[in-house]
Amino acid sequence: MAVRTKKEKLELIAQRIRPFQDFPSKGILFRDICPILKDPEALTAVTDLFEEHVRQTYPAVELVVGLDARGFLFGPLLAQRLGVGFALVRKKGKLPGPTSSVAYSLEYGKAEVEIQEDGVLPGQKVVLIDDLLATGGTLYATCELMKRQKADVLGCLVVIELLDLKGAERIGSTPTFSLVQY
Amino acid sequence: MAVRTKKEKLELIAQRIRPFQDFPSKGILFRDICPILKDPEALTAVTDLFEEHVRQTYPAVELVVGLDARGFLFGPLLAQRLGVGFALVRKKGKLPGPTSSVAYSLEYGKAEVEIQEDGVLPGQKVVLIDDLLATGGTLYATCELMKRQKADVLGCLVVIELLDLKGAERIGSTPTFSLVQY
Repeated sequence: MAVRTKKEKLELIAQRIRPFQDFPSKGILFRDICPILKDPEALTAVTDLFEEHVRQTYPAVELVVGLDARGFLFGPLLAQRLGVGFALVRKKGKLPGPTSSVAYSLEYGKAEVEIQEDGVLPGQKVVLIDDLLATGGTLYATCELMKRQKADVLGCLVVIELLDLKGAERIGSTPTFSLVQY
Repeated sequence: MAVRTKKEKLELIAQRIRPFQDFPSKGILFRDICPILKDPEALTAVTDLFEEHVRQTYPAVELVVGLDARGFLFGPLLAQRLGVGFALVRKKGKLPGPTSSVAYSLEYGKAEVEIQEDGVLPGQKVVLIDDLLATGGTLYATCELMKRQKADVLGCLVVIELLDLKGAERIGSTPTFSLVQY
Protein backbone atom coordinates (compact mmCIF):
# COMPACT_ATOMS: atom_id res chain seq x y z
CA MET A 1 0.00 0.00 0.00
CA ALA A 2 1.46 3.37 -1.04
CA VAL A 3 2.16 5.93 1.64
CA ARG A 4 -0.34 8.72 1.11
CA THR A 5 -0.29 12.35 2.15
CA LYS A 6 -3.17 13.81 4.12
CA LYS A 7 -4.47 15.48 0.95
CA GLU A 8 -4.36 12.19 -0.96
CA LYS A 9 -6.20 10.43 1.85
CA LEU A 10 -8.94 13.06 1.84
CA GLU A 11 -9.25 12.78 -1.96
CA LEU A 12 -9.51 8.99 -1.76
CA ILE A 13 -12.24 9.23 0.90
CA ALA A 14 -14.20 11.81 -1.12
CA GLN A 15 -14.00 9.54 -4.18
CA ARG A 16 -15.55 6.71 -2.14
CA ILE A 17 -18.71 8.66 -1.21
CA ARG A 18 -21.64 8.10 -3.59
CA PRO A 19 -24.64 10.42 -3.95
CA PHE A 20 -28.15 8.96 -4.26
CA GLN A 21 -30.97 11.35 -5.13
CA ASP A 22 -34.33 11.02 -3.30
CA PHE A 23 -33.21 8.61 -0.57
CA PRO A 24 -34.63 7.91 1.96
CA SER A 25 -37.34 10.30 0.76
CA LYS A 26 -38.00 12.69 -2.13
CA GLY A 27 -35.77 15.76 -2.19
CA ILE A 28 -32.99 14.23 -0.06
CA LEU A 29 -29.54 13.74 -1.60
CA PHE A 30 -28.13 10.80 0.37
CA ARG A 31 -24.34 10.51 0.75
CA ASP A 32 -23.50 6.81 0.85
CA ILE A 33 -20.38 5.78 2.77
CA CYS A 34 -20.58 2.05 1.91
CA PRO A 35 -17.84 2.33 -0.77
CA ILE A 36 -15.43 3.60 1.92
CA LEU A 37 -15.99 0.40 3.88
CA LYS A 38 -15.52 -1.71 0.76
CA ASP A 39 -12.07 -0.21 0.11
CA PRO A 40 -9.63 -1.17 2.89
CA GLU A 41 -7.26 1.66 1.96
CA ALA A 42 -10.03 4.29 2.18
CA LEU A 43 -11.19 2.93 5.55
CA THR A 44 -7.60 3.03 6.83
CA ALA A 45 -7.38 6.65 5.61
CA VAL A 46 -10.51 7.60 7.60
CA THR A 47 -9.07 6.06 10.75
CA ASP A 48 -5.65 7.67 10.12
CA LEU A 49 -7.15 11.15 9.84
CA PHE A 50 -9.44 10.78 12.85
CA GLU A 51 -6.54 9.42 14.90
CA GLU A 52 -4.23 12.25 13.85
CA HIS A 53 -6.86 14.87 14.71
CA VAL A 54 -7.63 13.39 18.13
CA ARG A 55 -3.98 12.89 19.08
CA GLN A 56 -3.18 16.50 18.15
CA THR A 57 -6.33 18.14 19.50
CA TYR A 58 -7.55 15.94 22.35
CA PRO A 59 -4.55 13.92 23.58
CA ALA A 60 -6.31 13.37 26.94
CA VAL A 61 -9.20 11.40 25.34
CA GLU A 62 -10.30 8.41 27.43
CA LEU A 63 -13.26 6.98 25.49
CA VAL A 64 -14.78 6.99 22.01
CA VAL A 65 -18.59 7.10 21.98
CA GLY A 66 -20.28 6.00 18.75
CA LEU A 67 -23.80 6.54 17.45
CA ASP A 68 -26.04 3.70 16.27
CA ALA A 69 -25.55 2.36 13.63
CA ARG A 70 -23.02 3.90 11.25
CA GLY A 71 -20.94 5.35 14.08
CA PHE A 72 -20.33 1.70 15.01
CA LEU A 73 -18.49 1.22 11.69
CA PHE A 74 -15.82 3.84 12.41
CA GLY A 75 -15.72 4.16 16.20
CA PRO A 76 -14.12 0.87 17.31
CA LEU A 77 -11.36 1.31 14.69
CA LEU A 78 -10.50 4.73 16.12
CA ALA A 79 -10.77 3.54 19.74
CA GLN A 80 -8.35 0.68 19.05
CA ARG A 81 -5.85 3.05 17.42
CA LEU A 82 -6.04 5.35 20.45
CA GLY A 83 -5.85 2.45 22.90
CA VAL A 84 -9.11 3.46 24.61
CA GLY A 85 -12.55 1.89 24.97
CA PHE A 86 -15.67 2.35 22.86
CA ALA A 87 -19.19 2.97 24.20
CA LEU A 88 -22.46 2.59 22.30
CA VAL A 89 -25.21 5.19 22.09
CA ARG A 90 -28.34 3.55 20.71
CA LYS A 91 -31.95 4.24 19.93
CA LYS A 92 -34.07 3.69 23.02
CA GLY A 93 -34.81 0.10 24.04
CA LYS A 94 -31.76 -1.58 22.52
CA LEU A 95 -29.43 -1.57 25.54
CA PRO A 96 -29.90 -3.83 28.60
CA GLY A 97 -29.59 -2.79 32.23
CA PRO A 98 -29.91 0.65 33.80
CA THR A 99 -29.75 3.33 31.10
CA SER A 100 -29.97 7.08 30.70
CA SER A 101 -31.75 8.64 27.73
CA VAL A 102 -32.50 11.99 26.08
CA ALA A 103 -35.44 12.67 23.75
CA TYR A 104 -35.15 14.88 20.68
CA SER A 105 -37.32 16.02 17.81
CA LEU A 106 -37.13 14.66 14.29
CA GLU A 107 -38.75 16.21 11.22
CA TYR A 108 -41.69 13.92 11.92
CA GLY A 109 -42.07 12.80 15.52
CA LYS A 110 -39.51 12.15 18.23
CA ALA A 111 -36.64 9.82 19.01
CA GLU A 112 -34.48 9.06 22.03
CA VAL A 113 -30.79 8.31 22.38
CA GLU A 114 -29.72 6.04 25.19
CA ILE A 115 -26.53 4.84 26.91
CA GLN A 116 -25.93 2.36 29.69
CA GLU A 117 -25.51 4.20 32.99
CA ASP A 118 -22.00 2.78 33.34
CA GLY A 119 -21.27 3.38 29.63
CA VAL A 120 -19.48 6.60 30.41
CA LEU A 121 -18.11 7.71 33.79
CA PRO A 122 -18.43 11.17 35.41
CA GLY A 123 -15.51 13.34 34.32
CA GLN A 124 -14.47 10.95 31.55
CA LYS A 125 -13.06 12.73 28.50
CA VAL A 126 -14.85 11.49 25.39
CA VAL A 127 -15.07 12.11 21.67
CA LEU A 128 -18.31 11.36 19.82
CA ILE A 129 -18.24 9.73 16.37
CA ASP A 130 -20.81 9.29 13.61
CA ASP A 131 -20.76 8.98 9.83
CA LEU A 132 -22.63 12.18 9.00
CA LEU A 133 -23.48 15.58 10.44
CA ALA A 134 -26.69 16.94 8.90
CA THR A 135 -29.02 19.02 11.13
CA GLY A 136 -27.13 17.72 14.17
CA GLY A 137 -30.23 16.59 16.07
CA THR A 138 -28.87 13.21 17.11
CA LEU A 139 -25.39 14.51 17.93
CA TYR A 140 -26.86 17.40 19.94
CA ALA A 141 -29.04 14.99 21.92
CA THR A 142 -25.99 12.79 22.50
CA CYS A 143 -24.03 15.79 23.82
CA GLU A 144 -26.92 16.45 26.24
CA LEU A 145 -26.84 12.78 27.24
CA MET A 146 -23.10 13.05 27.96
CA LYS A 147 -23.71 16.20 30.06
CA ARG A 148 -26.36 14.37 32.06
CA GLN A 149 -23.80 11.62 32.74
CA LYS A 150 -21.28 14.35 33.68
CA ALA A 151 -18.87 13.26 30.95
CA ASP A 152 -16.61 15.80 29.30
CA VAL A 153 -17.22 15.89 25.52
CA LEU A 154 -14.01 17.11 23.88
CA GLY A 155 -15.37 17.06 20.34
CA CYS A 156 -17.47 15.40 17.66
CA LEU A 157 -15.99 13.56 14.67
CA VAL A 158 -17.88 12.81 11.45
CA VAL A 159 -16.83 11.59 8.03
CA ILE A 160 -19.25 13.89 6.19
CA GLU A 161 -20.64 17.31 7.08
CA LEU A 162 -23.55 18.88 5.16
CA LEU A 163 -22.68 22.55 5.68
CA ASP A 164 -26.04 23.98 4.51
CA LEU A 165 -27.85 22.26 7.37
CA LYS A 166 -25.73 24.05 10.01
CA GLY A 167 -25.42 21.06 12.32
CA ALA A 168 -22.18 22.40 13.82
CA GLU A 169 -24.06 25.53 14.97
CA ARG A 170 -26.76 23.41 16.58
CA ILE A 171 -24.18 21.41 18.50
CA GLY A 172 -22.93 24.77 19.72
CA SER A 173 -19.94 24.91 22.00
CA THR A 174 -18.71 21.38 21.24
CA PRO A 175 -16.21 21.53 18.35
CA THR A 176 -16.91 19.33 15.33
CA PHE A 177 -14.37 17.87 12.92
CA SER A 178 -15.37 16.51 9.52
CA LEU A 179 -13.31 14.90 6.76
CA VAL A 180 -15.48 15.78 3.73
CA GLN A 181 -17.82 18.76 3.45
CA TYR A 182 -20.66 19.40 0.99
CA MET B 1 0.00 -4.76 27.04
CA ALA B 2 0.95 -8.29 28.10
CA VAL B 3 1.17 -10.94 25.40
CA ARG B 4 -1.70 -13.31 26.01
CA THR B 5 -2.21 -16.91 24.98
CA LYS B 6 -5.32 -17.92 23.06
CA LYS B 7 -6.76 -19.40 26.27
CA GLU B 8 -6.14 -16.16 28.17
CA LYS B 9 -7.76 -14.14 25.39
CA LEU B 10 -10.86 -16.34 25.49
CA GLU B 11 -11.04 -16.03 29.28
CA LEU B 12 -10.75 -12.23 29.08
CA ILE B 13 -13.53 -12.06 26.49
CA ALA B 14 -15.81 -14.33 28.55
CA GLN B 15 -15.21 -12.12 31.61
CA ARG B 16 -16.37 -9.09 29.60
CA ILE B 17 -19.80 -10.54 28.73
CA ARG B 18 -22.57 -9.57 31.18
CA PRO B 19 -25.86 -11.41 31.60
CA PHE B 20 -29.11 -9.45 32.00
CA GLN B 21 -32.23 -11.40 32.95
CA ASP B 22 -35.54 -10.57 31.20
CA PHE B 23 -34.15 -8.35 28.44
CA PRO B 24 -35.50 -7.44 25.93
CA SER B 25 -38.52 -9.41 27.22
CA LYS B 26 -39.45 -11.68 30.13
CA GLY B 27 -37.68 -15.05 30.13
CA ILE B 28 -34.78 -13.94 27.93
CA LEU B 29 -31.25 -13.97 29.38
CA PHE B 30 -29.48 -11.27 27.37
CA ARG B 31 -25.70 -11.53 26.90
CA ASP B 32 -24.31 -7.99 26.77
CA ILE B 33 -21.12 -7.44 24.79
CA CYS B 34 -20.74 -3.72 25.66
CA PRO B 35 -18.01 -4.40 28.27
CA ILE B 36 -15.88 -6.01 25.54
CA LEU B 37 -16.00 -2.76 23.58
CA LYS B 38 -15.15 -0.75 26.69
CA ASP B 39 -11.94 -2.74 27.26
CA PRO B 40 -9.45 -2.16 24.43
CA GLU B 41 -7.51 -5.32 25.30
CA ALA B 42 -10.64 -7.48 25.14
CA LEU B 43 -11.66 -5.98 21.80
CA THR B 44 -8.16 -6.60 20.45
CA ALA B 45 -8.46 -10.20 21.66
CA VAL B 46 -11.73 -10.70 19.75
CA THR B 47 -10.15 -9.37 16.56
CA ASP B 48 -6.99 -11.47 17.12
CA LEU B 49 -8.98 -14.69 17.44
CA PHE B 50 -11.27 -13.98 14.48
CA GLU B 51 -8.23 -13.06 12.36
CA GLU B 52 -6.35 -16.20 13.36
CA HIS B 53 -9.36 -18.41 12.57
CA VAL B 54 -9.98 -16.82 9.18
CA ARG B 55 -6.31 -16.88 8.13
CA GLN B 56 -6.04 -20.56 9.04
CA THR B 57 -9.42 -21.73 7.77
CA TYR B 58 -10.38 -19.36 4.94
CA PRO B 59 -7.15 -17.82 3.64
CA ALA B 60 -8.88 -16.98 0.33
CA VAL B 61 -11.41 -14.62 1.97
CA GLU B 62 -12.09 -11.50 -0.09
CA LEU B 63 -14.76 -9.64 1.92
CA VAL B 64 -16.18 -9.42 5.44
CA VAL B 65 -19.98 -8.98 5.55
CA GLY B 66 -21.41 -7.64 8.83
CA LEU B 67 -24.93 -7.67 10.20
CA ASP B 68 -26.70 -4.53 11.43
CA ALA B 69 -25.98 -3.26 14.06
CA ARG B 70 -23.64 -5.18 16.38
CA GLY B 71 -21.86 -6.91 13.51
CA PHE B 72 -20.73 -3.39 12.56
CA LEU B 73 -18.78 -3.20 15.83
CA PHE B 74 -16.53 -6.17 15.06
CA GLY B 75 -16.56 -6.50 11.25
CA PRO B 76 -14.52 -3.48 10.12
CA LEU B 77 -11.79 -4.33 12.67
CA LEU B 78 -11.49 -7.84 11.22
CA ALA B 79 -11.65 -6.62 7.62
CA GLN B 80 -8.81 -4.13 8.24
CA ARG B 81 -6.67 -6.86 9.81
CA LEU B 82 -7.26 -9.10 6.80
CA GLY B 83 -6.71 -6.26 4.33
CA VAL B 84 -10.12 -6.78 2.70
CA GLY B 85 -13.30 -4.72 2.41
CA PHE B 86 -16.40 -4.71 4.60
CA ALA B 87 -20.01 -4.80 3.35
CA LEU B 88 -23.15 -3.94 5.32
CA VAL B 89 -26.23 -6.11 5.59
CA ARG B 90 -29.05 -4.03 7.05
CA LYS B 91 -32.71 -4.19 7.90
CA LYS B 92 -34.81 -3.30 4.86
CA GLY B 93 -35.03 0.35 3.87
CA LYS B 94 -31.73 1.56 5.31
CA LEU B 95 -29.49 1.21 2.23
CA PRO B 96 -29.69 3.52 -0.82
CA GLY B 97 -29.63 2.46 -4.47
CA PRO B 98 -30.49 -0.92 -6.02
CA THR B 99 -30.67 -3.58 -3.31
CA SER B 100 -31.43 -7.26 -2.90
CA SER B 101 -33.35 -8.55 0.13
CA VAL B 102 -34.54 -11.76 1.78
CA ALA B 103 -37.50 -11.99 4.19
CA TYR B 104 -37.46 -14.23 7.24
CA SER B 105 -39.71 -15.04 10.17
CA LEU B 106 -39.25 -13.75 13.69
CA GLU B 107 -41.01 -15.04 16.78
CA TYR B 108 -43.61 -12.33 16.16
CA GLY B 109 -43.89 -11.13 12.57
CA LYS B 110 -41.33 -10.90 9.80
CA ALA B 111 -38.16 -9.01 8.95
CA GLU B 112 -35.97 -8.56 5.87
CA VAL B 113 -32.21 -8.37 5.46
CA GLU B 114 -30.89 -6.27 2.61
CA ILE B 115 -27.62 -5.57 0.81
CA GLN B 116 -26.70 -3.18 -1.99
CA GLU B 117 -26.65 -5.05 -5.30
CA ASP B 118 -22.98 -4.19 -5.73
CA GLY B 119 -22.26 -4.87 -2.04
CA VAL B 120 -20.97 -8.33 -2.86
CA LEU B 121 -19.86 -9.63 -6.26
CA PRO B 122 -20.73 -13.01 -7.86
CA GLY B 123 -18.12 -15.58 -6.86
CA GLN B 124 -16.69 -13.39 -4.11
CA LYS B 125 -15.49 -15.35 -1.08
CA VAL B 126 -17.01 -13.87 2.07
CA VAL B 127 -17.24 -14.45 5.80
CA LEU B 128 -20.28 -13.23 7.73
CA ILE B 129 -19.89 -11.64 11.14
CA ASP B 130 -22.30 -10.83 13.97
CA ASP B 131 -22.13 -10.54 17.75
CA LEU B 132 -24.42 -13.43 18.63
CA LEU B 133 -25.80 -16.67 17.22
CA ALA B 134 -29.15 -17.52 18.83
CA THR B 135 -31.80 -19.23 16.66
CA GLY B 136 -29.81 -18.26 13.58
CA GLY B 137 -32.76 -16.65 11.76
CA THR B 138 -30.94 -13.50 10.67
CA LEU B 139 -27.70 -15.30 9.78
CA TYR B 140 -29.62 -17.94 7.81
CA ALA B 141 -31.48 -15.23 5.87
CA THR B 142 -28.14 -13.50 5.22
CA CYS B 143 -26.68 -16.77 3.86
CA GLU B 144 -29.69 -16.98 1.51
CA LEU B 145 -29.10 -13.36 0.50
CA MET B 146 -25.46 -14.19 -0.30
CA LYS B 147 -26.57 -17.20 -2.38
CA ARG B 148 -28.96 -15.01 -4.33
CA GLN B 149 -26.04 -12.65 -5.07
CA LYS B 150 -23.97 -15.72 -6.06
CA ALA B 151 -21.38 -15.00 -3.40
CA ASP B 152 -19.46 -17.87 -1.80
CA VAL B 153 -20.01 -17.87 1.99
CA LEU B 154 -16.97 -19.54 3.56
CA GLY B 155 -18.24 -19.31 7.13
CA CYS B 156 -20.00 -17.35 9.86
CA LEU B 157 -18.19 -15.76 12.81
CA VAL B 158 -19.88 -14.74 16.07
CA VAL B 159 -18.58 -13.69 19.46
CA ILE B 160 -21.27 -15.63 21.38
CA GLU B 161 -23.18 -18.80 20.51
CA LEU B 162 -26.24 -19.93 22.50
CA LEU B 163 -25.93 -23.69 21.96
CA ASP B 164 -29.43 -24.60 23.20
CA LEU B 165 -31.05 -22.63 20.39
CA LYS B 166 -29.27 -24.71 17.72
CA GLY B 167 -28.58 -21.80 15.40
CA ALA B 168 -25.61 -23.60 13.82
CA GLU B 169 -27.96 -26.41 12.72
CA ARG B 170 -30.35 -23.92 11.16
CA ILE B 171 -27.54 -22.31 9.18
CA GLY B 172 -26.84 -25.82 7.95
CA SER B 173 -23.95 -26.39 5.59
CA THR B 174 -22.19 -23.09 6.32
CA PRO B 175 -19.67 -23.59 9.14
CA THR B 176 -19.96 -21.33 12.19
CA PHE B 177 -17.18 -20.27 14.52
CA SER B 178 -17.90 -18.77 17.95
CA LEU B 179 -15.57 -17.51 20.67
CA VAL B 180 -17.77 -18.06 23.74
CA GLN B 181 -20.51 -20.65 24.08
CA TYR B 182 -23.37 -20.89 26.58
